[in-house]
Amino acid sequence: MDYLNSREQLLKRSVEAKEIYLPHISADPVIFGFDQKELKVLLAKMKYRKQWLLPGGYVQKNEDLDDAVLRILESRTGITNVFLEEFGVFGKKNRSEFYYQDFDDTLFQKQRFISVGYYALYNSSEINPIADEMSETCEWIYLKDLPGIDLAMDHREIIEKALLTLREKISFKPIGYNLLPEKFTLPELQKLYEAILGKALNRGNFYRKIKNLGILKKLEEQRRGGAHKSPDLYSFDNENYKKALENGLNSW
Amino acid sequence: MDYLNSREQLLKRSVEAKEIYLPHISADPVIFGFDQKELKVLLAKMKYRKQWLLPGGYVQKNEDLDDAVLRILESRTGITNVFLEEFGVFGKKNRSEFYYQDFDDTLFQKQRFISVGYYALYNSSEINPIADEMSETCEWIYLKDLPGIDLAMDHREIIEKALLTLREKISFKPIGYNLLPEKFTLPELQKLYEAILGKALNRGNFYRKIKNLGILKKLEEQRRGGAHKSPDLYSFDNENYKKALENGLNSW
Repeated sequence: MDYLNSREQLLKRSVEAKEIYLPHISADPVIFGFDQKELKVLLAKMKYRKQWLLPGGYVQKNEDLDDAVLRILESRTGITNVFLEEFGVFGKKNRSEFYYQDFDDTLFQKQRFISVGYYALYNSSEINPIADEMSETCEWIYLKDLPGIDLAMDHREIIEKALLTLREKISFKPIGYNLLPEKFTLPELQKLYEAILGKALNRGNFYRKIKNLGILKKLEEQRRGGAHKSPDLYSFDNENYKKALENGLNSW
Repeated sequence: MDYLNSREQLLKRSVEAKEIYLPHISADPVIFGFDQKELKVLLAKMKYRKQWLLPGGYVQKNEDLDDAVLRILESRTGITNVFLEEFGVFGKKNRSEFYYQDFDDTLFQKQRFISVGYYALYNSSEINPIADEMSETCEWIYLKDLPGIDLAMDHREIIEKALLTLREKISFKPIGYNLLPEKFTLPELQKLYEAILGKALNRGNFYRKIKNLGILKKLEEQRRGGAHKSPDLYSFDNENYKKALENGLNSW
């Protein structure tokens, strides 16, 4: 019953889609979320096949690609005002042929799509994903749980490439603004870097390196209430942070 | 006569193209060349309109996107075996509508294209560009001469984005291998960085920073024959260079 419904939905969508969208181009947003502890990624479980996919979509015939990506994300998750960055184009000729194999070739969704990947990293507590009608659910999945998730097409590869790009990015751009509370401790900042890198960092090295970047301001207050020694609080030096965002951390 | 010929060619190409290529997707390679002094970019002057364009092309219906980019570059310039990196997707809805305005809308080339940009940086002396039949010429243009060049569509924007990506890249990845002679002086290496960045660098700062990266090996010989004091020769430390290429120069 559910399977038949999802088939009917896909066939109905196919008819509309041929009118509205460009063929062969799709977009896939990879939205990472940080919850002060770990990294998650936003995925939709589709009614059809019960497999998970990135909340992607198509480009309207008369719409800029950048606008399409924002519209897709909003329609699939309810998220607005996200700053997304393009990180890769996925163009293998057979990347999605298996997924719709029990439809005939006239299905819009079954054609060959070259997909443009975009990523963003957000504070996950500020985003409440809402599933669209094609999806059973749209939710945060911890990166550590991804191996057990049934991801369709090449979406595992797309997520991995997004993560690699994010990891590369933090070697030359500052990060943390909008992800941490306004006042934070160095252990909290270190946790963010460790969540992104997926590995533990040496505390002494991390403190030395992060302080050398010149983007932190030490405040005249400590975090109170913990079991341990009250740790110093920091905030970002807005001016230097912005400069580093524009010019990079290690510019020549 | 030349104008009529180029129109005929485009019309003939359009018929073939509809058979062979996916609609709406194109690829544009931005090939930078270094000649030990300055940076150049590879451009084709089209017979039609006499304007300059990147040596781009389309994706065959049954071809991986990556393979398409290499085929396009070879067919348009004669260059083979280039390692290209994707740096941006250009998807404004009106990005190319003016260029083919004196054709009707059935022309394959006139439809809306979302173009994927790829860049590479090569030793320009190793590449001998050859124009295809659509182009009057395919040649190296110095970046400093670009303002005087009549570039069509949004190709100036594409080149600028490629250059920004390259500049960002050298803040976290080593560069120089294959661009410099096997043994080089620090002034020669500095010239490469200055050519990419488009600005002069302070010599002392540059020497200190580049040596700190740990990718150079000082040789037991000097460059002879110049008017000035014989400068020390260096080569890249292959192992460290490779490691830095994989992990980045400033990894956490």
